[in-house]
Amino acid sequence: MCSTISKRMLGLTQKNSAVREMFEEGNRLAKLYGRENVYDFSIGNPYFPAPERVSSAIHEVLENEAVNYVHGYMPNAGFPDVRQAVAESLNKRFETSYSSANVIMTVGAAGGLNCALQTLLDPDDEVICFAPFFLEYGNYIANHGGRLVIVPAGASDFQPDAEALRKAISPKTKALIINSPNNPTGVIYSEETIKKLAAVLEEKQREYSHPIFIISDEPYRELSYDGAVVPWLPSFYRNTIVGYSWSKSLSLPGERIGYLLIPSEVEDFELVFSAASISNRILGFVNAPSLIQLAVAKCLDERTDIASYDTNRKLLYNGLTALGFDCVYPQGTFYLWMKTPCDDKEFAQLAKKYNILVVPGASFACPGYVRIAYCVGSDTIRGSLPGFEKLAKELGL
Amino acid sequence: MCSTISKRMLGLTQKNSAVREMFEEGNRLAKLYGRENVYDFSIGNPYFPAPERVSSAIHEVLENEAVNYVHGYMPNAGFPDVRQAVAESLNKRFETSYSSANVIMTVGAAGGLNCALQTLLDPDDEVICFAPFFLEYGNYIANHGGRLVIVPAGASDFQPDAEALRKAISPKTKALIINSPNNPTGVIYSEETIKKLAAVLEEKQREYSHPIFIISDEPYRELSYDGAVVPWLPSFYRNTIVGYSWSKSLSLPGERIGYLLIPSEVEDFELVFSAASISNRILGFVNAPSLIQLAVAKCLDERTDIASYDTNRKLLYNGLTALGFDCVYPQGTFYLWMKTPCDDKEFAQLAKKYNILVVPGASFACPGYVRIAYCVGSDTIRGSLPGFEKLAKELGL
Repeated sequence: MCSTISKRMLGLTQKNSAVREMFEEGNRLAKLYGRENVYDFSIGNPYFPAPERVSSAIHEVLENEAVNYVHGYMPNAGFPDVRQAVAESLNKRFETSYSSANVIMTVGAAGGLNCALQTLLDPDDEVICFAPFFLEYGNYIANHGGRLVIVPAGASDFQPDAEALRKAISPKTKALIINSPNNPTGVIYSEETIKKLAAVLEEKQREYSHPIFIISDEPYRELSYDGAVVPWLPSFYRNTIVGYSWSKSLSLPGERIGYLLIPSEVEDFELVFSAASISNRILGFVNAPSLIQLAVAKCLDERTDIASYDTNRKLLYNGLTALGFDCVYPQGTFYLWMKTPCDDKEFAQLAKKYNILVVPGASFACPGYVRIAYCVGSDTIRGSLPGFEKLAKELGL
Repeated sequence: MCSTISKRMLGLTQKNSAVREMFEEGNRLAKLYGRENVYDFSIGNPYFPAPERVSSAIHEVLENEAVNYVHGYMPNAGFPDVRQAVAESLNKRFETSYSSANVIMTVGAAGGLNCALQTLLDPDDEVICFAPFFLEYGNYIANHGGRLVIVPAGASDFQPDAEALRKAISPKTKALIINSPNNPTGVIYSEETIKKLAAVLEEKQREYSHPIFIISDEPYRELSYDGAVVPWLPSFYRNTIVGYSWSKSLSLPGERIGYLLIPSEVEDFELVFSAASISNRILGFVNAPSLIQLAVAKCLDERTDIASYDTNRKLLYNGLTALGFDCVYPQGTFYLWMKTPCDDKEFAQLAKKYNILVVPGASFACPGYVRIAYCVGSDTIRGSLPGFEKLAKELGL
């Protein structure tokens, strides 16, 4: 028994090796067959670079603003002007009336989610996630002493089931994490779904006489296709906190820049906002990185190359369904969620024979599927299809 | 009783108002008397701007590197090249043999400290701090379920007392936070002090058969005066983790960029390093901001304007001692630690009459003193001295 690091972290060092193995497998295959002959669909890393405006905005900030302002401390919630600009850009889109007082700039969405959870959770409070979901949420919840409660996937459309939610809520339920457009399914939760979930939450809030929050994790909000509308959750449910990140929409995942939006309508708004700002400080973020705060404020109308992701989406979906695979048609994100004709881990293992790397659904608490991340070049998708064809034959499709 | 936010955060929202009050008091006085007539010594915010090299390094990175590399994901521990550059710059200074494998780039020192603490602490493990100390450490420790144990200040030179340390160590002691050059005292812990502390720790490690770590928080390492040498702790004690930040040395506090240095010699090195990298990920940092990682790697030999801080130091120390105040001569940082002839909170209150803002020692777990942050323009120091003179008379010095 190791007495050097904590028991929890010891467990995580052992788990982490699964991810590392996949990464190392990609490198091993690339060495053997050449990087261009490996079809790595395992990582949700934006393929199309940040729009040029990001770089010019950074140059502008450095040239026009005082050095101590650009690199200096500001309130823990972020530069007031940047927060106001974010609020106004939301107001234009969602007919809301937010101001800087509703926005906390955060170290990505991951940083924001941790602040929201620390703000809300007492030890042993419960937080609900709908499977399949990004398993990292479980780590975030555990960071703050909370307990993860998983509501299993229901119908095949991967819209969360309000009745299953009702059964999962207990007097200890403090929050629900919603992620739409969804990683890993690519599904956008419909207005109908949101209304049903909100009705259950309203009912349970009354029953238990305490607020239950939706924490809406929205890094993929801007990645929706066919003009699909991603419902703005605070318009449907009062106690909603939105976490956003520019990691995907501006292809800035390394910069760690996002925000929390806390509407004035949430219960005890001033306490919640104040606590989340303090949490930003005490968790060690202190504030979102300053230069990049100032830069993204100039890029609020910029977007990554969604048309190219859309091309990939159709190429992959059409290619795989033509081979007989059963896929969920992605409405958003850059993930395709595919049913596996055999055990999902076995499928991921078999796929490696054809230099194809995908993530088993078990890694999202939903076995029987795999996630195929199409944030890659179109050539990678085209190149992978013969391998998928052989897989289909091998599995009797 | 509020049931919206957690009990811990509710307590912190109430405490936080003390800091906010000081900030608002500064603004109130500035409105009444003009900003230039307010002598605000309350905040440790670098006054001298980042060296010009920082800005040119950022431009260089943007111009010469691929966009997806600059703003993209990298290993959670940071860009391998950046980590190698940091390791080599330490090797040059301290005759060590670190490599990228010993460095984790972090979101400032605050981010790094949180990762180190999460790595080490099981619930109710104890972490020792020597008073006076930066109270935020208490929040960081509590984030990870640890308990803060305070060793009171001993002798008037504010060097920690090894015998007091021995008494404070229990079987639950997992770590000790050391901060030298010290905020708030400006003292550099001497080699003699470090050796004595190390001897006690070695003895207690043997007694309890488990490692006790020093976490060395070193944001002020580069801010030392008169050629004073800040001992490199890992050379004196094997189980040392160093947390660094460029917030003060390059005046980049808003950018949140620092590192953890974990020597290969620490017990269970691979586990500790792996856990700290995972902690960087799961706490929501994910990685240190990417562009600024690449930029600081080009600025490892740059320094802020230490000569000007030194001018301030002498001006303030000489001015105050001439008035009869009892001050600790600062060897490093940009803080002066002054004994108060009356209660420290009362002194801070009295000082406001003369538009002087200082922080009571109680805010560092050490009443009877105040911290005067001289990271200000020299004019602020000169302008404040008549007010300090009136204070001295009022208090019978």
